Amino acid sequence: MIAKRLPFSRDEFSRRLTKTRAAMAAKGIDVLFVEDPSNMAWLTGYDGWSFYVHQGVIVFHDEDPIWWGRRQDANGAYRTVWMDDGQVTFYADNYVQSTERHPMQTLAAILREKGYGAKRVGLEFDNYYFSAKAYLTLKDELPAADLIDATALVNWQRTVKSGEEIAFMRKAARISEKIVDGIVERMRPGLKKNELVADILGDAVRGTDDAWGDYAAIVPLLPSGSDAAAPHLTWDGRETESGTATFFEIAGCYRRYHVPFCRTVFLGTPPAFLLEAEKALVEGLEAGLEAARAGNRACDIANALAAPLERAGIERGARCGYPVGLSYPPDWGERTISLREEDQTVLQPGMTFHFMPGLWMQDWGMEITETILIRENGAAECLCERPRKLFVKD
Amino acid sequence: MIAKRLPFSRDEFSRRLTKTRAAMAAKGIDVLFVEDPSNMAWLTGYDGWSFYVHQGVIVFHDEDPIWWGRRQDANGAYRTVWMDDGQVTFYADNYVQSTERHPMQTLAAILREKGYGAKRVGLEFDNYYFSAKAYLTLKDELPAADLIDATALVNWQRTVKSGEEIAFMRKAARISEKIVDGIVERMRPGLKKNELVADILGDAVRGTDDAWGDYAAIVPLLPSGSDAAAPHLTWDGRETESGTATFFEIAGCYRRYHVPFCRTVFLGTPPAFLLEAEKALVEGLEAGLEAARAGNRACDIANALAAPLERAGIERGARCGYPVGLSYPPDWGERTISLREEDQTVLQPGMTFHFMPGLWMQDWGMEITETILIRENGAAECLCERPRKLFVKD
Repeated sequence: MIAKRLPFSRDEFSRRLTKTRAAMAAKGIDVLFVEDPSNMAWLTGYDGWSFYVHQGVIVFHDEDPIWWGRRQDANGAYRTVWMDDGQVTFYADNYVQSTERHPMQTLAAILREKGYGAKRVGLEFDNYYFSAKAYLTLKDELPAADLIDATALVNWQRTVKSGEEIAFMRKAARISEKIVDGIVERMRPGLKKNELVADILGDAVRGTDDAWGDYAAIVPLLPSGSDAAAPHLTWDGRETESGTATFFEIAGCYRRYHVPFCRTVFLGTPPAFLLEAEKALVEGLEAGLEAARAGNRACDIANALAAPLERAGIERGARCGYPVGLSYPPDWGERTISLREEDQTVLQPGMTFHFMPGLWMQDWGMEITETILIRENGAAECLCERPRKLFVKD
Repeated sequence: MIAKRLPFSRDEFSRRLTKTRAAMAAKGIDVLFVEDPSNMAWLTGYDGWSFYVHQGVIVFHDEDPIWWGRRQDANGAYRTVWMDDGQVTFYADNYVQSTERHPMQTLAAILREKGYGAKRVGLEFDNYYFSAKAYLTLKDELPAADLIDATALVNWQRTVKSGEEIAFMRKAARISEKIVDGIVERMRPGLKKNELVADILGDAVRGTDDAWGDYAAIVPLLPSGSDAAAPHLTWDGRETESGTATFFEIAGCYRRYHVPFCRTVFLGTPPAFLLEAEKALVEGLEAGLEAARAGNRACDIANALAAPLERAGIERGARCGYPVGLSYPPDWGERTISLREEDQTVLQPGMTFHFMPGLWMQDWGMEITETILIRENGAAECLCERPRKLFVKD
């Protein structure tokens, strides 16, 4: 028997499974196949960079989940999932990237053998990794089954964090603070972007005294000047210049739990329009934090933010946040709630969001953000404690 | 007009588009939609961490490609693609992760407007990011179109690298060597894994004097001892121990071009079985390199490797390599050729592979690998030049 190092208690995993089964029952789903690596990890503990091949977790109502994947990755599953080894099953290597065979043929065979060939099978239709071909193969192989869209079914169970999860996020928050402190300290004109990223990643992975750093689901983003209009450009080897703003979008990560945190640094003397934007943005953040209370709705945060920005003539046109927690690349968001005008989701204690009102304008950008925890009472708690401002270095 | 910093010449992009159009014509495809971020970048230069939302490139026979994505990411497209700004188009932010709207509705509208509503539309059916829901939405929205599986159509055009691409890979190879040198120098009992990863990422991103380091599509993998049986476990904060082998799977990356390179380090005195495995593996690698010649087939490399391993009683059961070059997470492989017994693809000069005969056994593992370039004449060239052995540190 291989020693396991489970991140969470067995009670915690039981709680998650029970919640998921109830959601399956509510949708009339007999068996659920989960390919999202974040959902796989949340349900079973599975942790490995193997999501570039088809793999997943099968959730039953009356049996422990089954981990299913590539043969060589079963070795990782034996070491990371809470289930017995008998619940780990795999397909042969020549199914990988084959034009003759598809891994989903082997998944369908398991479902048929288990008696689900003519049942209601839940699938994550809109998820990275669950491709059109995966769906079409299952449809061919399970002609009598009813394939039901279960996109985000598990993700929704993840929105309210347990005490164990919040403890992980607090550790991640300490790493986020350390990263931002390092950035503010190191930023200067003439610094090569890739050199700075090397230090950011070093801080992120070294972590803190009681928390080793895991990899974040998104690499650091730090465009400057006009490029800061584009939220998702990555770095290159050019030097930072005086007279420009650079935003830093980073997340500390502890055992796959993320606390994103963004700040902007200006080198030199900021122009008036940036200072006005900063003022409106900070005012909007503070209004949003006040609105981020249990019982209020997701849109209340977005609307509270929008008012001061509109007064300053800034129209964003994008959502201003999303839930965060356990994640794998390519995204650290949970893909359920969106903090935007049309989202009526009621906020509950234990929910965690990246409140992220990035300003990406025609030829400039600014990010000042907070990862927040909805409390039983009162305004939201910010998991990081650092000044909420545009940092200026002369 | 925003200044563009294209990584390649216009001739290089023209060559790629011409090849892709010819492949489309051969399959009778009137218009091709490409969601794979590597294919998007290869065709247009687009570079950004925005692949967590639906986006893509539309390839026509008679018009420049169109970049299509989320509104805020159009700012990144204006800065990175070779096409005119008029060929950049976007959908509104409230299509992102909505249960009411799907971005593919807007893609379908473009295809209909352009006259492709009843044509043969190529789609990457088995690709990360092109989800079942994306396919089903397009099917609903384009009822008269013929949706054709074009999985890996563009990937296949990428197998033979141009001179410009090989120059990038040579720069990446210098970074790979630097990373491995740093690992061998730093490894010692009692070193925390995450501390070592911090240094690995630092070396990778700092790069070399003439090449800044980009992020690799896979994080460093470095399991030790029994855990090395599992190829895709990531690090934690535990200390390395004397008497164990640790394999290091890393890649230098320059402007998205990867050169993966793996070596194994033993702390202490290796047991006889590991030394025997090393001997067989190195012999197998050398036999494989000899077989890796233009005109030979992919399977010839796999078979040459297998013979010495079999003599040593080692059965791998997994493919021993794949093409590499431009990539985005979650994989640095190109997902076309597999170096395995059943793959009859004829090797051509300019092809580049990660020759990757990882040994992942019941309770130990070893990786000694090479990224290779198929030459006009003679055996393959190894892009990195470092001793092909198990490194032992007493």
